[in-house]
Amino acid sequence: MAAPLPGAALIFPMKKFAFAIHGGAGTILKSAMTPEKEMAYRDALHKALKLGADLLEKGGSATEAVEAAVVEMENSALFNAGYGSVFTHDKSHELDASIMEGKGRKAGAVAGVKRIKNPISLCRKIMERSEHVFLIGEGAEAFATEEGEELVSESYFSTEARKQQLLKIRDSMKTQLDHSDDQLKKFGTVGAVAMDSKGNLAAATSTGGITNKRYSRVGDTAIIGSGTYAENGVCAISSTGWGEYFIRAVAAYEVAALMKYGKMTLEEASNQLVHQVIPEMGGDGGIIAVDSFGNIAMPFNTEGMYRAKVDSENAPEVSIYK
Amino acid sequence: MAAPLPGAALIFPMKKFAFAIHGGAGTILKSAMTPEKEMAYRDALHKALKLGADLLEKGGSATEAVEAAVVEMENSALFNAGYGSVFTHDKSHELDASIMEGKGRKAGAVAGVKRIKNPISLCRKIMERSEHVFLIGEGAEAFATEEGEELVSESYFSTEARKQQLLKIRDSMKTQLDHSDDQLKKFGTVGAVAMDSKGNLAAATSTGGITNKRYSRVGDTAIIGSGTYAENGVCAISSTGWGEYFIRAVAAYEVAALMKYGKMTLEEASNQLVHQVIPEMGGDGGIIAVDSFGNIAMPFNTEGMYRAKVDSENAPEVSIYK
Repeated sequence: MAAPLPGAALIFPMKKFAFAIHGGAGTILKSAMTPEKEMAYRDALHKALKLGADLLEKGGSATEAVEAAVVEMENSALFNAGYGSVFTHDKSHELDASIMEGKGRKAGAVAGVKRIKNPISLCRKIMERSEHVFLIGEGAEAFATEEGEELVSESYFSTEARKQQLLKIRDSMKTQLDHSDDQLKKFGTVGAVAMDSKGNLAAATSTGGITNKRYSRVGDTAIIGSGTYAENGVCAISSTGWGEYFIRAVAAYEVAALMKYGKMTLEEASNQLVHQVIPEMGGDGGIIAVDSFGNIAMPFNTEGMYRAKVDSENAPEVSIYK
Repeated sequence: MAAPLPGAALIFPMKKFAFAIHGGAGTILKSAMTPEKEMAYRDALHKALKLGADLLEKGGSATEAVEAAVVEMENSALFNAGYGSVFTHDKSHELDASIMEGKGRKAGAVAGVKRIKNPISLCRKIMERSEHVFLIGEGAEAFATEEGEELVSESYFSTEARKQQLLKIRDSMKTQLDHSDDQLKKFGTVGAVAMDSKGNLAAATSTGGITNKRYSRVGDTAIIGSGTYAENGVCAISSTGWGEYFIRAVAAYEVAALMKYGKMTLEEASNQLVHQVIPEMGGDGGIIAVDSFGNIAMPFNTEGMYRAKVDSENAPEVSIYK
């Protein structure tokens, strides 16, 4: 394919669509992974990727694709989002999520919800059907109820595996990151970024937070500009990492700013955030990113990141380790 | 004073300190303001400004100064933050705040707290004494209790004037902005930015939200990168405006990014955000900003913004209208 004129890609992207997802970053040591478990993760990632990609292939919107893939991962017990979310110190679940679409930079976000089966879908409703962006706790649930959404019981999110994780560290005062029970830090978050056939971008991120967390701590996942950002003509970003550092670095928007004002490519900007800004502050994690040319970047500075990508020109790729 | 070499100002600022505060932006029509009311606002702004400036003059830190001024405004019934916060639809109060210091880009934030007398001081405790950045609702209050802070009753924040505002619009489904009862939109937020004698920057923002708000809506005030941002060598920003737009524009960090990567001055970057980015999206409001040279910018695109500034070279200025 001939290279387009500069800027032309905003109107005629080189690719018809591009799509990437993540299921969290962290030190996912190969030694601690069984072949069965690895296969289960790969299957789940592939299924979520295919859901979004099929929508994009048929001309669906970037927003539809990122929502569908994140819903799929929220519904899987393997990922720390929705069903299978980790337990808080008080044996409950507090879920955070956010979504943003590049066209008009519209956004929706929730934090600390306990009875929303698919937080990412509630974010989309907030974005599309309210005058607000960010609703928290019972207020967000009241909005969901008024929108006709059925609330689930808090126990819906609970799985035995996550309960065991909590019990192991329940008496420890120290907040543990997901998978810390086996000395593995894993940032349990799911996310998706997409460019659709109209060149529109979207990003979505969802999490169950950190095991044994207290004080209704909220990480970057709910924060527009940190966990999630999308702007047509620039990029769409979903973060996964040590949330406090991603908030303080305004991580997702940092990539957009480096592209808009620092004249970097998507890959350069993503690498600068993940391999320079965040580690220099003392944090770690990764991002998935797509630009309006359909380029995809998925850098991480941890041992692994559950991730997958596909575009109209390239076959699906599912990866866990470096 | 001779102009310093480029970059030298980071070590030897031209000014010993610089300090600015705001008490909210909006269409504060002169016709609706009595001379007595205007004098009361001017006095309150002057008092808060002096508190912070005196600390800075004596070599106090930027963080101490922004906290002190914001606490003073939280304790005043005139401003929509702390005591005198507006009422939610459910006749309660939900307060949001955040603080950030430029050295190390540390930050603390709360949203939806109902029993914290001075939310900005809790933010500072979160920043300095916890491993977290952002705590919400009862979780944030539990942290405060463990830190030895006494919770106030919810009625502490209530004033008759704010109650009348709510009652007038109580039955309306439409969320009203503060002062909307007299057809005035006013963004009730307080904030402060400072550069101290060591060249350290800090920013703080606090709000009671919007009258008659529902669903535990959170605006930009609690969001690091949108309502508040500080980075040594760049700038410190506190926003006041239509929160949803400031979140979607990642407003506070946008100014920093335009300076860091777009090579703009503080004034150019602040003006671009307030007079271009935000209005193009459909929002309005203003910011206060200080850079590491001690320059101050306070642009707004509304009829007025309660504001005041002072630095080591210039006498205090208190302003309300353009």
